[in-house]
Amino acid sequence: MLSEFSLIDRFFARRATAPSPRFDDEAATPLGIGDDCALIAPPAGHQLAISTDMLVEGRHFFADVDPHALGHKALAVNLSDLAAMGAKPHAFTLALALPRADEAWLEAFSDGLFALAERHDCALVGGDTTSGPLNLCITVFGDVPDGTALRRDAAQPGDDIWVSGTLGDARAGLGAIRGEWRAPDDATAADWKRALERPEPRVALGLALRGVAHAALDISDGLAGDLMHILKRSGMRAVVDADSVPCSDAVRALPDAARRACALAGGDDYELCFTAPVDARDTLANIATRVKVPLTRIGTIESSGAPGIVWRDASGAPLSLTLQGFDHFHAD
Amino acid sequence: MLSEFSLIDRFFARRATAPSPRFDDEAATPLGIGDDCALIAPPAGHQLAISTDMLVEGRHFFADVDPHALGHKALAVNLSDLAAMGAKPHAFTLALALPRADEAWLEAFSDGLFALAERHDCALVGGDTTSGPLNLCITVFGDVPDGTALRRDAAQPGDDIWVSGTLGDARAGLGAIRGEWRAPDDATAADWKRALERPEPRVALGLALRGVAHAALDISDGLAGDLMHILKRSGMRAVVDADSVPCSDAVRALPDAARRACALAGGDDYELCFTAPVDARDTLANIATRVKVPLTRIGTIESSGAPGIVWRDASGAPLSLTLQGFDHFHAD
Repeated sequence: MLSEFSLIDRFFARRATAPSPRFDDEAATPLGIGDDCALIAPPAGHQLAISTDMLVEGRHFFADVDPHALGHKALAVNLSDLAAMGAKPHAFTLALALPRADEAWLEAFSDGLFALAERHDCALVGGDTTSGPLNLCITVFGDVPDGTALRRDAAQPGDDIWVSGTLGDARAGLGAIRGEWRAPDDATAADWKRALERPEPRVALGLALRGVAHAALDISDGLAGDLMHILKRSGMRAVVDADSVPCSDAVRALPDAARRACALAGGDDYELCFTAPVDARDTLANIATRVKVPLTRIGTIESSGAPGIVWRDASGAPLSLTLQGFDHFHAD
Repeated sequence: MLSEFSLIDRFFARRATAPSPRFDDEAATPLGIGDDCALIAPPAGHQLAISTDMLVEGRHFFADVDPHALGHKALAVNLSDLAAMGAKPHAFTLALALPRADEAWLEAFSDGLFALAERHDCALVGGDTTSGPLNLCITVFGDVPDGTALRRDAAQPGDDIWVSGTLGDARAGLGAIRGEWRAPDDATAADWKRALERPEPRVALGLALRGVAHAALDISDGLAGDLMHILKRSGMRAVVDADSVPCSDAVRALPDAARRACALAGGDDYELCFTAPVDARDTLANIATRVKVPLTRIGTIESSGAPGIVWRDASGAPLSLTLQGFDHFHAD
């Protein structure tokens, strides 16, 4: 059995690095793991964007999840919040409650975690480890130039509403695991599982959207619920063409109710939903090509005293949908 | 049953505030709860000190703990890390896994949390709530002028070693709950319980020690283990007069073995241990008076190739002590 300190040292501290030099200046040496606090500072004229997410066994992942995938996802969901603000990843802390110090599990978990962290130049700068029911809490730090963060309260009347990638594959994967439906073939089953377990945070897209998008967020709890956050904070309503919401072919082939549950209310997608003025369409087409992420226009922002979503089908006819975002105290 | 969002709104978001104005400038409006990320920035010439702690039922607190005390302690242990760096509290995030949304429990917990937060002008700026076995993860942010943080690696040969307050009451309280010993009277039992459940982070002391102390940390896992962190990182050894370690009268009255277990290796004290040059003694006496926290000199730093603690008794005779700091995968 490893002690707490040798566990931290073996799987985390040795792979942790001082925050990258771009946060450095001569007066401010950054300090990472091993002191009471980490010390970091954003560059002059920048703010630090901070987000925290807690992942719990049985709620956010299954007990038998591949620990490598779990390490990836624990950081990915946090990087996704930075992406949604247009912030550049810089550092993170990890707090970890473990039922036991299982070396093979920890090795795979930390491999998955650091593979993603290194890809985004995001340094582990501190943390905490304890015994207890499995629980992962990551707090992530990014930097964004003053005044350029993509906020939820900035949607404007007439804005287009955009979504990145495709929606619903993660929820389709969950449904397949639960036996709600079956994947049509093994390749699709693998795609769905990957969408559920290894979401790719849209960091490059978030950075490219600075100065282009008005409001933005990441879709973690389902399009319908998350878009409502933008609408409430911006005091706007949305008219959305439900059939234009981008889906993979496999999700599109599901029965209507299942397809809409996945695409419009499925959680865990971690795509970005954002609004942008009509005259940004060409710029957004270029951005989509440059960052290699498809962008799809799904509707329009309208001024309104009562925030809400008006759903229409491809012909423009009104659709009545009862959808609910993911709620950790109600869903499932 | 409250939904996740109404729970956040009712007990936390309404009491959360935008970070205090001292972090403001015209270009950088801080953003608190309700967006993907919080946005904060330390003042020019300052670094952000960051610490994270995770508290788990059965390990850091008992299932029947007073939730008001738990709210206090969850933030206190994090503020203590800021104090140990000489950082001024600014903001925190809270991630919370709850087995159920119990309104009375949440009201008392948030009351305890915000009472301490408001006392230290420390704003809740973000968080996450989920269902799951009870788990609290707080990440705290403070600011410290560049180059003035109290680090663990800065002890110098000849430094005095100092401890604030008294050590061992929290461990004595734990021992009383476990039946290892009994408090001599009800007043002492209450003192011990308060030490265990409501530690007071030494924030004012930490700020006063900037530019005076060399190395510092907070004693969360017991003096012996925590002092070793300073010694290892500074490459020094310590000669400590075990009998000079400050204790309450009630701890001092315990049998020798119990007294030393409490005072020298007991966890959860959250006092500061620091080193300072001999010529700072008068300054430290003034600081002790000003911040109303007793400071006691317990030993000396010596240069050494092998970090370690040499224990002596009041007469200077060597003591052989086998002590171990608190380790979440071994202790108890």
